[in-house]
Amino acid sequence: MEKPFYTLPYEELPEQWYNLAADLPGAMHPPLTSDGTPATPESLSAVFPMNLIEQEMSDQRWIDIPEEVRDIIARWRPTPLRRAVYLEKALDTPARIYYKDESVSPPGSHKPNTAVAQAWYNKQAGIKQLTTETGAGQWGSALAFACQLVGLHCKVFMVRISFDQKPSRKIMMRVWNADCVPSPSETTEFGREMIAENPDTPGTLGGAISEAVQEAVGDPKGETRYALGSVLNHVMLHQTVIGLEAQKQLQQAGEKHPDRLIGCCGGGSNFAGLAFPFLSEKVNGSDIDVIGVEPTACPTMTRGRFAYDYGDSAESTPLLPMHSLGHRFVPSGIHAGGLRYHGMAPLVSHAVEQGLVDPLALDQLECYNAALLWSRTEGAICAPETSHAVAAAVREARKAREEGKERCILFNYSGHGLMDLSAYQNYLDGQLQDSTLSDQELEKGLKILDENPAP
Amino acid sequence: MEKPFYTLPYEELPEQWYNLAADLPGAMHPPLTSDGTPATPESLSAVFPMNLIEQEMSDQRWIDIPEEVRDIIARWRPTPLRRAVYLEKALDTPARIYYKDESVSPPGSHKPNTAVAQAWYNKQAGIKQLTTETGAGQWGSALAFACQLVGLHCKVFMVRISFDQKPSRKIMMRVWNADCVPSPSETTEFGREMIAENPDTPGTLGGAISEAVQEAVGDPKGETRYALGSVLNHVMLHQTVIGLEAQKQLQQAGEKHPDRLIGCCGGGSNFAGLAFPFLSEKVNGSDIDVIGVEPTACPTMTRGRFAYDYGDSAESTPLLPMHSLGHRFVPSGIHAGGLRYHGMAPLVSHAVEQGLVDPLALDQLECYNAALLWSRTEGAICAPETSHAVAAAVREARKAREEGKERCILFNYSGHGLMDLSAYQNYLDGQLQDSTLSDQELEKGLKILDENPAP
Repeated sequence: MEKPFYTLPYEELPEQWYNLAADLPGAMHPPLTSDGTPATPESLSAVFPMNLIEQEMSDQRWIDIPEEVRDIIARWRPTPLRRAVYLEKALDTPARIYYKDESVSPPGSHKPNTAVAQAWYNKQAGIKQLTTETGAGQWGSALAFACQLVGLHCKVFMVRISFDQKPSRKIMMRVWNADCVPSPSETTEFGREMIAENPDTPGTLGGAISEAVQEAVGDPKGETRYALGSVLNHVMLHQTVIGLEAQKQLQQAGEKHPDRLIGCCGGGSNFAGLAFPFLSEKVNGSDIDVIGVEPTACPTMTRGRFAYDYGDSAESTPLLPMHSLGHRFVPSGIHAGGLRYHGMAPLVSHAVEQGLVDPLALDQLECYNAALLWSRTEGAICAPETSHAVAAAVREARKAREEGKERCILFNYSGHGLMDLSAYQNYLDGQLQDSTLSDQELEKGLKILDENPAP
Repeated sequence: MEKPFYTLPYEELPEQWYNLAADLPGAMHPPLTSDGTPATPESLSAVFPMNLIEQEMSDQRWIDIPEEVRDIIARWRPTPLRRAVYLEKALDTPARIYYKDESVSPPGSHKPNTAVAQAWYNKQAGIKQLTTETGAGQWGSALAFACQLVGLHCKVFMVRISFDQKPSRKIMMRVWNADCVPSPSETTEFGREMIAENPDTPGTLGGAISEAVQEAVGDPKGETRYALGSVLNHVMLHQTVIGLEAQKQLQQAGEKHPDRLIGCCGGGSNFAGLAFPFLSEKVNGSDIDVIGVEPTACPTMTRGRFAYDYGDSAESTPLLPMHSLGHRFVPSGIHAGGLRYHGMAPLVSHAVEQGLVDPLALDQLECYNAALLWSRTEGAICAPETSHAVAAAVREARKAREEGKERCILFNYSGHGLMDLSAYQNYLDGQLQDSTLSDQELEKGLKILDENPAP
């Protein structure tokens, strides 16, 4: 049989993160404050610690990973590169399908790669508590995990409907000593406003972000900061360990480079983590098709607009240059909660604009179909988000068969689906429909970008 | 930092299973039919295929692992041997704590090691369907997974109360194409009897075993067999890949042998999988304390009797020589469902009788306390069953500190707790009590052994 996986010893855990900003063609647009001037480090310092703001604005190609951060992520890294031997057989494809297995971390996804780094830098800066928001709980549990290991307190604002409906992630956060409160809450001004407006509101991710930021900024001792799980440059940076490890492992497997590289895209971080080191190869001439997969329910890159937009609905973040559906856009309630974000990481958006990344939108039915095929051939159960990458890999493998081409396909297996089994049940029960965004809803979302054009 | 984990390449996956029966001192007692005569291979052939019956009765020391079985278990094997660096620090112990991480399989535990082998041998024997029982769903999901990959149909009788209360494992089985029905069911004679007796019965594991056996034996085409997830010799055999890998990995770590080896014990299979290869070293003179940990709620080895007893409550299995609390014993409803079995594997029982294994019973409160410490230092969340091994390792590490001794502790991390988070919630809410079995309940259970003494 083909060798089914490639490991790396502890000693080969990357010692530096790779910063794509150093190599991207075309000038990056800076983040802006709401008055239209470029955001300064100082203007961000109430929200983030200065050491992370420096990373956010850095154009240095390689940035050292602190030894303590390496020690902590070495609990589950380097992650295996696996070959999907049985899926290949089932598809009768000449393609070789590899996947980087990020599901092996204790919280079950790639998220702790940046959670640990962010917690550590905050701790170094003397911060005592981090706040954040979470939808289904994937990011909240990753930050709770990281704060517990680093020694910070963590407070998570969880969108109320998920707080009520999804107890498991909430218990994980509690096991890791975090406070998890439903959002809107009574503890922030914005939360109280939301409740006053509609006492029965199910909450929104944008509202939870606003609450988490207000809670951080409002700490009278100045010992609280906010942490974001995707979108920002330093988050993409921390995730590049994924691609750097995969480069070495593909070499072990005798592959020169992937012909197709695939990741699912919500805010962009797992995709960036795998893709950015390979984009550096691509910029230098390697022939790699890099595919970012988003849901048709939230088609930021394929149907959104590249514009300056806010990161949250309350307009409390700087304006970021990104593909966006408008910061008040509310996507339909698909199970892939991690892909329900109105914007896209500025670095990913820039790479799309430069033609380095091809966006692809897939509907959830195709994705669950592929996820079931995956479980029934490879055995593991993937997260609803990850199913988008699986579905794109299946498409590419079928194409390779049709074209009779041997191709190397690599995708990011961003997380397992063990906390999302009800999604599979709904699919098997025939309760899921095509979730493609209507033109009308799209226009409604984009309108805010016309009403509030970038300064 | 200390090296946090030791991997093995695919090529070092064991090529043979180790059979402790070849090396155990003292003659093993044979299984008996209900008339008191030794069970013959033929008498078992309606329940199991002949190739597995041969393994069950074999005293050959090494048995080849079929290449296809190796290929399938190579999806997650060799599993990592990890060092619990952060727990060591928290306990300020001179002990070195290693654990074999069996939680990395797609169903989340060691169970698929034997599920895959059993499915494969049944397939070779021309069988089309396997039946089994499951309590909380760990074993049922592992067999569903294995049958799907090998190409058999799988039917799981799940104890009704778990069927109603624990949807996640049920969905996993469905994803893997298995039929999962609540037990008692209307599809077997024994099930109908149970329902007639008490229409609202929550079901029992013993009843579910009886239903699964009846379903297998009753197939008019003779194409159905039954699979058991623990207790039997061939199940222990299939699990020895765990210990065989650990022996190589401990060598990598520069350890001669563990001073303390620990596993939790329900039917005995995860314990046996790690311990048996090391018991072979012990029989040959190595100084290893081997500790089997059971719950005080189901203290088979520490308070049960070594006797001939049935494997199920309906007395449909042969009589097995084992430590037992009586085959009608119903343990209290602790979350560690995998440890709620009235008997112990005959091979493990024999090793206890020979003084090779020291049994230890721990109460659930001590175990959850240790599991929380584990999650908050090491990061991962362990299964309720596994918490018993963690708690014993913590005890030994504290003892090493008190005695000022450097010691090598090795335990089996049999599964993750991601499907069992409600157990953690109950513990954190203070809803769990000391679950130690009362003398009165113990006597009630053992009575059946006096009423029906071994022939």
